[in-house]
Amino acid sequence: MKIKVLKFGGTSVGSIEAIKRSASIISSWSKKNKVIAVLSAMSGETDRLINLTKQLSKNPNPSDYDNAISTGENVSCALMSVYLNAIKVKSKSLQSWQIPIITSNEHMKSRILKIDSEYLINGLKEFDVLLVPGFQGVNTKNQLTTLGRGGSDTSAVAVAAAINAECIIYTDVDGVYTTDPNLVPSARKIDQISYEEMLELASQGAKVLQTRSVELAMRKKTKLSVRSSMEPKKTGTIVTEENSTLENNTVSGIAYSKDEAKITLSRVLDKPGVSSKIFGPLARGNINVDMILQNVSQDGKYANLSFTLPRGDLDKALKILKKEKTTIGYKRIQSSNTISKVSVVGVGMRSHAGVAQTLFDTLGKNKINIQVITTSEIKISILIDEQFTDLAVQKLHEAYKLHKK
Amino acid sequence: MKIKVLKFGGTSVGSIEAIKRSASIISSWSKKNKVIAVLSAMSGETDRLINLTKQLSKNPNPSDYDNAISTGENVSCALMSVYLNAIKVKSKSLQSWQIPIITSNEHMKSRILKIDSEYLINGLKEFDVLLVPGFQGVNTKNQLTTLGRGGSDTSAVAVAAAINAECIIYTDVDGVYTTDPNLVPSARKIDQISYEEMLELASQGAKVLQTRSVELAMRKKTKLSVRSSMEPKKTGTIVTEENSTLENNTVSGIAYSKDEAKITLSRVLDKPGVSSKIFGPLARGNINVDMILQNVSQDGKYANLSFTLPRGDLDKALKILKKEKTTIGYKRIQSSNTISKVSVVGVGMRSHAGVAQTLFDTLGKNKINIQVITTSEIKISILIDEQFTDLAVQKLHEAYKLHKK
Repeated sequence: MKIKVLKFGGTSVGSIEAIKRSASIISSWSKKNKVIAVLSAMSGETDRLINLTKQLSKNPNPSDYDNAISTGENVSCALMSVYLNAIKVKSKSLQSWQIPIITSNEHMKSRILKIDSEYLINGLKEFDVLLVPGFQGVNTKNQLTTLGRGGSDTSAVAVAAAINAECIIYTDVDGVYTTDPNLVPSARKIDQISYEEMLELASQGAKVLQTRSVELAMRKKTKLSVRSSMEPKKTGTIVTEENSTLENNTVSGIAYSKDEAKITLSRVLDKPGVSSKIFGPLARGNINVDMILQNVSQDGKYANLSFTLPRGDLDKALKILKKEKTTIGYKRIQSSNTISKVSVVGVGMRSHAGVAQTLFDTLGKNKINIQVITTSEIKISILIDEQFTDLAVQKLHEAYKLHKK
Repeated sequence: MKIKVLKFGGTSVGSIEAIKRSASIISSWSKKNKVIAVLSAMSGETDRLINLTKQLSKNPNPSDYDNAISTGENVSCALMSVYLNAIKVKSKSLQSWQIPIITSNEHMKSRILKIDSEYLINGLKEFDVLLVPGFQGVNTKNQLTTLGRGGSDTSAVAVAAAINAECIIYTDVDGVYTTDPNLVPSARKIDQISYEEMLELASQGAKVLQTRSVELAMRKKTKLSVRSSMEPKKTGTIVTEENSTLENNTVSGIAYSKDEAKITLSRVLDKPGVSSKIFGPLARGNINVDMILQNVSQDGKYANLSFTLPRGDLDKALKILKKEKTTIGYKRIQSSNTISKVSVVGVGMRSHAGVAQTLFDTLGKNKINIQVITTSEIKISILIDEQFTDLAVQKLHEAYKLHKK
């Protein structure tokens, strides 16, 4: 039994017309394969539900919140199956508790632990297409849980991994680009990209795939690709293991994020345990810290410590750190919410020197000041003033000749 | 543990304000009782979902259809619990598969077979309020099912019966009236009514309670009452066993339905088995026939047969009967969809003569022609031309002095 797992996002099921269009993609795959389609809620629906809960409570309790916002995907699946059956494709909509898709116990950002592949395989003996709601599962306490924003990508990869099938993500763009085409018109669609690069691009702000879904695909070696549900005949981007058929560019893509803020603590006593006094309370406050930079003062006693975090968490973080001032023991706290992060990603960096030099040269020539730099094996990220984001991305795209294959 | 089962209909949870208003009713009951609240979908939501499915298929397949239209109640329950927790009432929203509420296997008009009372009782040990979605359950194949229009009343009574608790139906009217107050301004709210009368009124067109819910309450002797969620302090109507404290009116109420059509078959061969040839195919077509009237011709060979059915089923029924013409063997088929049914209901009819006479006199005086009459122990139903419905109800309400206690 050849099985394809297809995933359709909110805009691909966002209207009667979109449902019919996506149904025809499912239908054509189902001629030579069994299909499991993982669906998001109709675009706007999850926000509508979140908005309703927010009108009733500033801090909705997680289990009820998940019960409310998980309904949209069930509607999409049911509607899709209604239409597929109407056009004579033998299909059936499932709910996550039926399969079940088992997740970890926490709500609102649960992780998928296990999917009963036998239930799905048995279902495909009777039906040609199964519709599975993305973004959710049930935990071991038999409560509905949700996976957090963009979780449907992860659901799709997890289903594909569970039954050892290929996963195709249908979305409103036709693939992964060297950078945001809205910013750089010469941005080029990438035909193949490695899991590692995709992971860095996704986590650095490219919104085509959710980070966790790429991570999972990489770990499970799931064949993953991205295609447009508007132009299904176009080949999209294949995400795969690093190999010789991959384009051998030094840099594969440039991602950026304007959703950044920076906090700097001055004259922190530089002794063991101080980091945990800073980052412990932030972690307990559910704040994810990203880049961390520390300079020790000349006398070696004090350090200046900067780190970045999502802009929406800045106020909360400042409040926490001010409360902990005496425990941590810093002199001054400063913050900025007008910064952005630009990341240059490419597996070729490992073997090619000069990538960082090109970056410094390009920004220098354009008089863009770099506030913070961090690097990994296949990525260089810089923090700059937000107003220079577009310029930096455009000039770097040009400098690395990303418009050319 | 004292438990109350409260049910809130679509308008009582139809907006943020309505949810907050109903929450305050739940909250005040929860001070001295444990509460299970059974909720409908927000008003308009089920119709929105039905409309989506109808745009995709004229005949949506039942299992997917149920998956789509059962989501609204889960949203109501989740939102209600979010708000109750926000105002410090310890509550939790449940889904029907968690409890579970077991139903018969068929979809779209399933019946509740069993509710796990232990799960609910255990839940009430931890929480003061449990929110249960009305209108749905899961069948023995582990598929979501729905109970048909108005099924939330039945869900509420079934939950109450399962845990042996009182059931209070909160709705947008403040009780059961002697007839539709929109039609007869002097219509009076009934303080107490017997299950039997309520059952007849409900099945004859009074829309306050769903027929099946009354039937179930009667069978299980569940204490049932109807109250207004807008004016929760007002005493509503108590539906109870027939007893001496009941108002001893001959006639308790008048119901009417304009959703009627009539079919007449002329010169049907009057021999055994002919009825099943007529009503068999209709039943298989899922058409519920109501009043049936048969006159045998003078020579005793032929019969004229009339029956009523819901207006929406008329075309389908005519099509079926025309197809079966030679099998049934009738000469002519006639139909009307401009008729209505008026029913006079009262347990006092059993002991009081003259109820029918008053009806005939009243309609005669007002020149309203009676097309069909059927009677039961506590009910007289007549079929009249639709245009006389309002007049008939008004004059009968007056004739039976229903505005007076």
